[in-house]
Amino acid sequence: MQIAFTTTLPQEGFRRLNGHHLYAQPEEAEVLVSTFDYRVTRAMMDTMPNLKLIANFGAGYNNIDLDACRERGIRVTNTPQPVIEPTAELAFALMIDVARRVAEFDRAIRNGTGQPMAVMNNLSRSLYGKTLGIIGMGRIGQALARRAVASGMHIIYHNRHRLPEEIEQRYDAQYVDFQTLLQDSDFVSLNLPYTPDVHHIIGKPELGMMKRTAFLINTARGAHVDEAALVEALKSGIIASAALDVYEHEPAISTDLLTLPNVVLSPHTGTGTWEGRIAMCECVTDNILAFVANEYNKMNIVL
Amino acid sequence: MQIAFTTTLPQEGFRRLNGHHLYAQPEEAEVLVSTFDYRVTRAMMDTMPNLKLIANFGAGYNNIDLDACRERGIRVTNTPQPVIEPTAELAFALMIDVARRVAEFDRAIRNGTGQPMAVMNNLSRSLYGKTLGIIGMGRIGQALARRAVASGMHIIYHNRHRLPEEIEQRYDAQYVDFQTLLQDSDFVSLNLPYTPDVHHIIGKPELGMMKRTAFLINTARGAHVDEAALVEALKSGIIASAALDVYEHEPAISTDLLTLPNVVLSPHTGTGTWEGRIAMCECVTDNILAFVANEYNKMNIVL
Repeated sequence: MQIAFTTTLPQEGFRRLNGHHLYAQPEEAEVLVSTFDYRVTRAMMDTMPNLKLIANFGAGYNNIDLDACRERGIRVTNTPQPVIEPTAELAFALMIDVARRVAEFDRAIRNGTGQPMAVMNNLSRSLYGKTLGIIGMGRIGQALARRAVASGMHIIYHNRHRLPEEIEQRYDAQYVDFQTLLQDSDFVSLNLPYTPDVHHIIGKPELGMMKRTAFLINTARGAHVDEAALVEALKSGIIASAALDVYEHEPAISTDLLTLPNVVLSPHTGTGTWEGRIAMCECVTDNILAFVANEYNKMNIVL
Repeated sequence: MQIAFTTTLPQEGFRRLNGHHLYAQPEEAEVLVSTFDYRVTRAMMDTMPNLKLIANFGAGYNNIDLDACRERGIRVTNTPQPVIEPTAELAFALMIDVARRVAEFDRAIRNGTGQPMAVMNNLSRSLYGKTLGIIGMGRIGQALARRAVASGMHIIYHNRHRLPEEIEQRYDAQYVDFQTLLQDSDFVSLNLPYTPDVHHIIGKPELGMMKRTAFLINTARGAHVDEAALVEALKSGIIASAALDVYEHEPAISTDLLTLPNVVLSPHTGTGTWEGRIAMCECVTDNILAFVANEYNKMNIVL
């Protein structure tokens, strides 16, 4: 197979492709390895007449023009499995960081603006005993729930479909309607995929329903949240704090967020660990090898 | 009872003492509520002729001159239970923060010095699949292990005494000697109490035995670690990173630590959540009420 890449990725994840020609020219390429942040357009496909498979690196694939693929009979695969644990891990990291004010205290110590060490100084909030509301209880949401339960949290969730009782019992998780989730949660975490119908699922009215002591965690997609409304809510104490890995107008981040103390900012790195990157490359390799062997049931097929 | 306080603490934790006289003068006081960061000396006790009980707020009690208490027949209590979850929570928060570089990325975004958002930028390390070595597998160490297991980590530990098999199985934890722990761990967490024989239990030789990719977490006591040796190890790449809540010469922090990027600094706030503070006050109240009722078996007796 002639395999082209849109982006330089760790070579060690592609060792099992050594019988194939890597780094092919577009006009020769039968397989394109694309990454979730690289737009694969109709015009690009027109330069690749032999293209049969786009093996996307990432769980999301809204970077790819699927209509153009459909017209050309190009198959598309993604890497849903290896993103689960790293993303849930970052969601948990941001939640515990903002509750325990880790980044904020670290910054204050380095700036010399911190309170002196004393019993009633530098206090923060515990996760232990609190209610976590998970919006989108898929595999990432569940991997977050597993961590939260071990931290002494109570789980409520909202999802398009209620989960089987067996899964609810695993996390002692309670299905609630969207409004109840907003009203009852001490921490709200967004873990649902982005589609236009969940655009601004968190806006001014929803922030207003949350507790004034609540924390919002977003590691899903920036456009889930009305960022201007969030800035306003953080400034005026409508909610306590937020921790964000994604932004509405990425890569731009609302300037106000950069100076607010009650926010933790992360550079869209939910899946961004070295281990996660290599696992994603291995999954791309699996998809390509299965395609070569005509084993479609072993591929993560999007199209 | 006449009850005096060394420090202003949240009143809501002392409501059940409303039949007693709070904020008594030293010469009247029968009970002293002291805090772990306030030294209760022999000279101080000499000003309190009626003192019968020192109800310390904190699990540690090296702030109190126990010999002087013994001579005077003064009882001493502490609050070991409510510190467990907040401290384990902070140890976990620091571990996941330093692995996923949360505070570092937040700082870089605010400073405008961060890498652009891109697939191979801003990479960090996963906890998932890694080995956590816990030095001191008491109640706090075990509460940390519970969180780590749910995060996909493998637990090894070193302790004065090997734990019962039942507890080892709960965390799938493996008892190892000290050197093996240092050599095999991706993350090393200190969760043992301070006594002079564990002074500098982590010094230059021990840092040298650790993996070059290893992370050190200290939420126990600063003097466990030779801070100068740690600074040197962090500068020269002997270990990857450290996350510290405690310091050898507290409240001073080695100046070098303030500018190293591969460190997370926390202002000795392991137990420092609002919820934890109130639970500690309630525990002090429990100890005082049990003392008043002569129910010594219900007190957390140190002396």
